[in-house]
Amino acid sequence: MPRNQQILLDNRPSGEAVASNFKLVSSETPPLQDGQVLVRHHYLSLDPYMRGRMNDSKSYTASQPVGAVFQGGTVGEVVESKHPKYAVGDKVVGFGGWQEYSVVDGSAPGALKKVDTTHVPLSHYLGAVGMPGVTAWYGLVKIIAPKEGETVVITAASGAVGSAFGALAKARGCRVVGIAGGPEKCKYAVEEIGFDACIDYRAHPDVKSMSAALKEACPNGIDGYFENVGGYIFDAVMLRLNAFARIALCGMIAGYDGAPLPLANPALFLINRVRLEGFIVSEHMEIWPEALAELGKLVGTGKLRPRESVAQGIAAAPQAFLGLLKGKNFGKQLVRLI
Amino acid sequence: MPRNQQILLDNRPSGEAVASNFKLVSSETPPLQDGQVLVRHHYLSLDPYMRGRMNDSKSYTASQPVGAVFQGGTVGEVVESKHPKYAVGDKVVGFGGWQEYSVVDGSAPGALKKVDTTHVPLSHYLGAVGMPGVTAWYGLVKIIAPKEGETVVITAASGAVGSAFGALAKARGCRVVGIAGGPEKCKYAVEEIGFDACIDYRAHPDVKSMSAALKEACPNGIDGYFENVGGYIFDAVMLRLNAFARIALCGMIAGYDGAPLPLANPALFLINRVRLEGFIVSEHMEIWPEALAELGKLVGTGKLRPRESVAQGIAAAPQAFLGLLKGKNFGKQLVRLI
Repeated sequence: MPRNQQILLDNRPSGEAVASNFKLVSSETPPLQDGQVLVRHHYLSLDPYMRGRMNDSKSYTASQPVGAVFQGGTVGEVVESKHPKYAVGDKVVGFGGWQEYSVVDGSAPGALKKVDTTHVPLSHYLGAVGMPGVTAWYGLVKIIAPKEGETVVITAASGAVGSAFGALAKARGCRVVGIAGGPEKCKYAVEEIGFDACIDYRAHPDVKSMSAALKEACPNGIDGYFENVGGYIFDAVMLRLNAFARIALCGMIAGYDGAPLPLANPALFLINRVRLEGFIVSEHMEIWPEALAELGKLVGTGKLRPRESVAQGIAAAPQAFLGLLKGKNFGKQLVRLI
Repeated sequence: MPRNQQILLDNRPSGEAVASNFKLVSSETPPLQDGQVLVRHHYLSLDPYMRGRMNDSKSYTASQPVGAVFQGGTVGEVVESKHPKYAVGDKVVGFGGWQEYSVVDGSAPGALKKVDTTHVPLSHYLGAVGMPGVTAWYGLVKIIAPKEGETVVITAASGAVGSAFGALAKARGCRVVGIAGGPEKCKYAVEEIGFDACIDYRAHPDVKSMSAALKEACPNGIDGYFENVGGYIFDAVMLRLNAFARIALCGMIAGYDGAPLPLANPALFLINRVRLEGFIVSEHMEIWPEALAELGKLVGTGKLRPRESVAQGIAAAPQAFLGLLKGKNFGKQLVRLI
């Protein structure tokens, strides 16, 4: 049995998450029982939602238990199988957590899914053709539901969700405006994803300046907003919403550490008759097949070229994750284990 | 032609609205043209939304012009008619504004509507069986859409919207919890409208205290919230929302004067996957017939007994309106002109 390096949640953060919240350990993988599959992880997925799970408080996902392997999405290869549905060499996406190997019940619904890497690189099943891509799809298609010619805005535009959102919205004839941190990310969003404009929030660090930048980038106002960040950017977008605007609320990364961030003027929801909806994509499994089919096609045909930030080796996962929370990644943040 | 006393908007408020924003004048009613109807107003409707229209800024309703008769809903009686559809003595509901008489184009769509006062007193067509009642109906039925047994909460529970909401929600098998100012209003909400509980916000003047009161009154959490007020009550309700709660946002009276009131923790929209929708009932005319039919039946059968605060004479309108903005009314605020 191979040695399996694992990262546990050792203790919960108070305020900002830090590296010492995590602990690297090593164990033997247990012998397989009938029906089980041994998966060697090629990539771990690092995602903002994980920060919420580090807290003990009520959150939109269950808490991550202390002392257990840190949970998260994984892609890898079957290296041993006692389940008829899986063969050695199968590429699979699963929820194996921060470890090099996982033992999976091959019959558990949704635990493993075989994927085709002919046109889509394996790692993209954690990004554009995985949970983040479906998140963008749900927010755009099911909540914002834009008409052709409407203007939609997304924060973290160069990230895994943002880039998928941009490609999906362009395919629907929208004007798509991104917000991202730094000129390099903005350049990528416009030149490689096809955003019509991208605003560097570092150059617009307050509501007034961001609101002016949005006015210029969205001359017809904002009809749809995909909220990933919260804080002053949300306040600035509120000032530019058109009547009957829709807001898909999927993350508020700016508020994950420490005190909640207020919203300055919620009366604008009324003034502009806004519809806002918070969602978690895992609660809408019925739309995954349709969403993944469109996303796979966009990636397979080169219309969506997602960026990745890749850290090497399991020990690098905590620092890469803490960097993600500060926006240090560029595109989908992964940890490569092979 | 009768003398017609009128109240104009003389100037716009800066901050709090005051009596000197209004001006009482008098004129002759002009002779009727063919197709016109002269209506003597029996009651003027005073409504919170009017405060927003006093400002020049972008609001959810058009601005009230300075120097013009202050606009608002009215009920009255046809006293002269040059339109075949209307006869002297007809009881009508319209939008005649703060004046004793109005001259109306009988063919203008929606300008006048004949009403039956056999089972429903004329004044109620400005309240429970009028715009406020339909507002409650739309928020409850179309946005909150409660299942039997769910818990719904409304602020300003003893008012025109609140009391209609309470009766409509009880008819759907909900647990209905009101919030109102003072023990007398709470007693009325529970004993006469049928609210299961009513919280006196004066006894709970901060988020922590209000949140504790809501916890006690809503042991199964809050599934639907009809927001009329904003401020700390909204913050307290946010802390008690269940997953997949719905919020109908129809007024933020606490913020009409002066600076906008923030929302402390919008991340709770995500954590609880909340759907929030701001609306103006005049943009949903298609539901009025269904809503008015149900509301008329509730009033006609005595299941909804709306309270009214009635000021006497046109000159009393400004002070009555300013009192309404401070919650001094009890139930629907009217001005009687006969």
